[in-house]
Amino acid sequence: MTRTSKVRVSGAIGVTGAKGFRAGAAAAGIKKKRGALDVAVLVCDTEASAAAVFTTNRVTGAPVQVSRRHLTARSAFAKASADKSTIRLRPSAFALCATADKPGFGGQVRAVVASSGNSNVCTGAQGLADAEEMTCLVAKEVGCPAEAVLVASTGVIGRLLPMEKVRAGLPKALASLARGRKADAAFARAIMTTDTRPKQAGVRLRIGGRTVTIGGATKGVGMIEPRMATTLGFLATDAAVGHTLLQAMLRRAADATYNCLTVDGHQSTSDTLVLLASGEAMAGCDPIAEGSAEAAKFESALAAVCENLARQIVADAEGGTKTIEVRVTGAASDEEAARAARAIANSPLVKCAFFGEDPNWGRITSAAGGAGISSGADSMRLAIGGVLIFENGTPVEVKAAKVKRAMKARDIVVHLDLGAGRGEARVLTCDLSYDYVKINASYTT
Amino acid sequence: MTRTSKVRVSGAIGVTGAKGFRAGAAAAGIKKKRGALDVAVLVCDTEASAAAVFTTNRVTGAPVQVSRRHLTARSAFAKASADKSTIRLRPSAFALCATADKPGFGGQVRAVVASSGNSNVCTGAQGLADAEEMTCLVAKEVGCPAEAVLVASTGVIGRLLPMEKVRAGLPKALASLARGRKADAAFARAIMTTDTRPKQAGVRLRIGGRTVTIGGATKGVGMIEPRMATTLGFLATDAAVGHTLLQAMLRRAADATYNCLTVDGHQSTSDTLVLLASGEAMAGCDPIAEGSAEAAKFESALAAVCENLARQIVADAEGGTKTIEVRVTGAASDEEAARAARAIANSPLVKCAFFGEDPNWGRITSAAGGAGISSGADSMRLAIGGVLIFENGTPVEVKAAKVKRAMKARDIVVHLDLGAGRGEARVLTCDLSYDYVKINASYTT
Repeated sequence: MTRTSKVRVSGAIGVTGAKGFRAGAAAAGIKKKRGALDVAVLVCDTEASAAAVFTTNRVTGAPVQVSRRHLTARSAFAKASADKSTIRLRPSAFALCATADKPGFGGQVRAVVASSGNSNVCTGAQGLADAEEMTCLVAKEVGCPAEAVLVASTGVIGRLLPMEKVRAGLPKALASLARGRKADAAFARAIMTTDTRPKQAGVRLRIGGRTVTIGGATKGVGMIEPRMATTLGFLATDAAVGHTLLQAMLRRAADATYNCLTVDGHQSTSDTLVLLASGEAMAGCDPIAEGSAEAAKFESALAAVCENLARQIVADAEGGTKTIEVRVTGAASDEEAARAARAIANSPLVKCAFFGEDPNWGRITSAAGGAGISSGADSMRLAIGGVLIFENGTPVEVKAAKVKRAMKARDIVVHLDLGAGRGEARVLTCDLSYDYVKINASYTT
Repeated sequence: MTRTSKVRVSGAIGVTGAKGFRAGAAAAGIKKKRGALDVAVLVCDTEASAAAVFTTNRVTGAPVQVSRRHLTARSAFAKASADKSTIRLRPSAFALCATADKPGFGGQVRAVVASSGNSNVCTGAQGLADAEEMTCLVAKEVGCPAEAVLVASTGVIGRLLPMEKVRAGLPKALASLARGRKADAAFARAIMTTDTRPKQAGVRLRIGGRTVTIGGATKGVGMIEPRMATTLGFLATDAAVGHTLLQAMLRRAADATYNCLTVDGHQSTSDTLVLLASGEAMAGCDPIAEGSAEAAKFESALAAVCENLARQIVADAEGGTKTIEVRVTGAASDEEAARAARAIANSPLVKCAFFGEDPNWGRITSAAGGAGISSGADSMRLAIGGVLIFENGTPVEVKAAKVKRAMKARDIVVHLDLGAGRGEARVLTCDLSYDYVKINASYTT
């Protein structure tokens, strides 16, 4: 169901784990809490291949609009200057072509700037100007065109960014640019909103005789139901990978991990997942080629990092006390399985039952039944935490205490087989507790 | 947006408000609470025209399956004996034709039996046999074929009905059959689950010089997102209406009222709305004709009763403290408007904000944006409780206190115009409170 590898993911590797990257953060005062880090910058020492996926919400944040525009512009720039490119372009907004001096590699993005506490969404023309200005402030310091800087913001919707604070805070973040654990931690912390802890993960693997690193940080605990996109995530690698391949690998990794996530079924306006590749660890090597064993190895490691970060989001979900993995198999199609899995994972009744450790499993079968599937109860088979509960349309005789025990776990797998075909899907989610209500009843006031 | 009339709906008129109907209830012991009413019967003294809409959930309760089968069988029976019928049949499972002795009218159903505390869903062949047996027990007493009895159950999913208790309790309910307030109240109470109060409504109107009554009762506070169907509702009228027209009118009334309802986005397996017409108030009159002014008047009154009952469900929603009417206008199509309205109404973030009276309106625009609509933030216009908040892609300068005051109301209208076309829809919902979590964290244990 997932394509994650056996590679060991480490929580000690962050955004500057890969060679060529530095990070900085500062407290600009966007967040109410005094001294809370709320602006962050990730800079690549050289030009990096860039890949990104964004929210598909029609109400899109200004930062997402600016980042998309910048990526497209960089693609056109690179295309114009790449007369010797050997990489075939894909018809995608994100398909950035190679530059002439670094065939099949690099030439696109130098930095990403992020802020938290205000998402700069539903803010009109002023919001777009503010997001642009953030990229300019960073570009000036880094020494690159503004279009080589991507921007992402997260927080409350519908308020203009306090730009005087951002203008004062960003230089501090840039002045603190560094590599290492302290810089990683500051970056991860500066992108948090209601997250209770920073989230980072990374791997090291061998590619072409070199040690390559993928490291990243993510945030998000509410308004989480990425669709074809994701919440905020920043990944950096020192592998040499052309952008076209990088984009394809990131898209697949996001689909298999971040896009299988839901906290509350509410898709964010700001979802952004960026992957930058500096190539520093593979200087003098050919970039990773599409279809090669190395590409498969790299992609598998990338998916493992994404899976780890996605699980950290669910584990820190607003008010969540449990991580629930909903697996649906035996569906007429993968789409049907995904619909059923998502309906189960988003049902507040199912989520409350898990919070109360109440084996009220009829809510699971009925949620699937309401999701536009083609099979009914008679062919379903349901197990919670490995305990078979329902089969052939009839409850299995099992002690409620046994099911209740399975529900006491911190991590629970719900497996529903629809008995109709070979379609399958999985969704990661959390339970629904008093604290979710508490956190979300007074977010802005 | 709704087609309800100006007719005065009264909470004093229940299921036996219309002539020809008697109701009875008893405490069979299905519910844990000692002495709680949990079986109910509604009997028509003569054969009544019947119309019904059921859940579209693929996991369907045994009672729904039995009721559907009985209605189809009665239709075939009536068709076979109706050689002089003047009513054109519609190709529907519910299109019951007229009988020869009562042209264009009657001849279908004598009674409905309901139980609460156990929904008899996911109970396999035994569950079907139990639902059939319930209709048999009533049919024997009423003196009609079992197929002339419909059945509906509500409560926990996945447990066999305690049939020995049902067998002992049903005769008591049948022995108590009566007309009047006491019988109405007992019926309404016997179909409750976590409802905090019984729900009934009715109207009286003049049709063809006669006073006609429509009265009914409903239940439901959780697992509420009727789609093409509804939760449990039982309506009785003494108007003379042929079943084909009755079915068409009930379908439209349900679509405009019950189907605009969501408490938690979780579609029930047991949704059943039944309307029986005895014709007693119009003895000697021609039945109401399709397309006539009387049909329009009757349908408008029917919709008003359904609207009233639907609002009672939302007002008593599990843990709900507010009724929120989400109106979406200016959509590219009605379907798009309905998707946006439903996404807003089902967002736990939106619901928590209303519980906390927190004017976090970005959750409303972003929920719509994530619902697969064609317009973006720039063309949206949003008002809460009549206070304009967002227009032309930019927040309107309005004091937070003013919005907060609008959110303090018990009944709130959220109006989002998408600025894209003429499509519109509305959804009734409630907020999400600590009590919803409390009620649903330990429903079965």
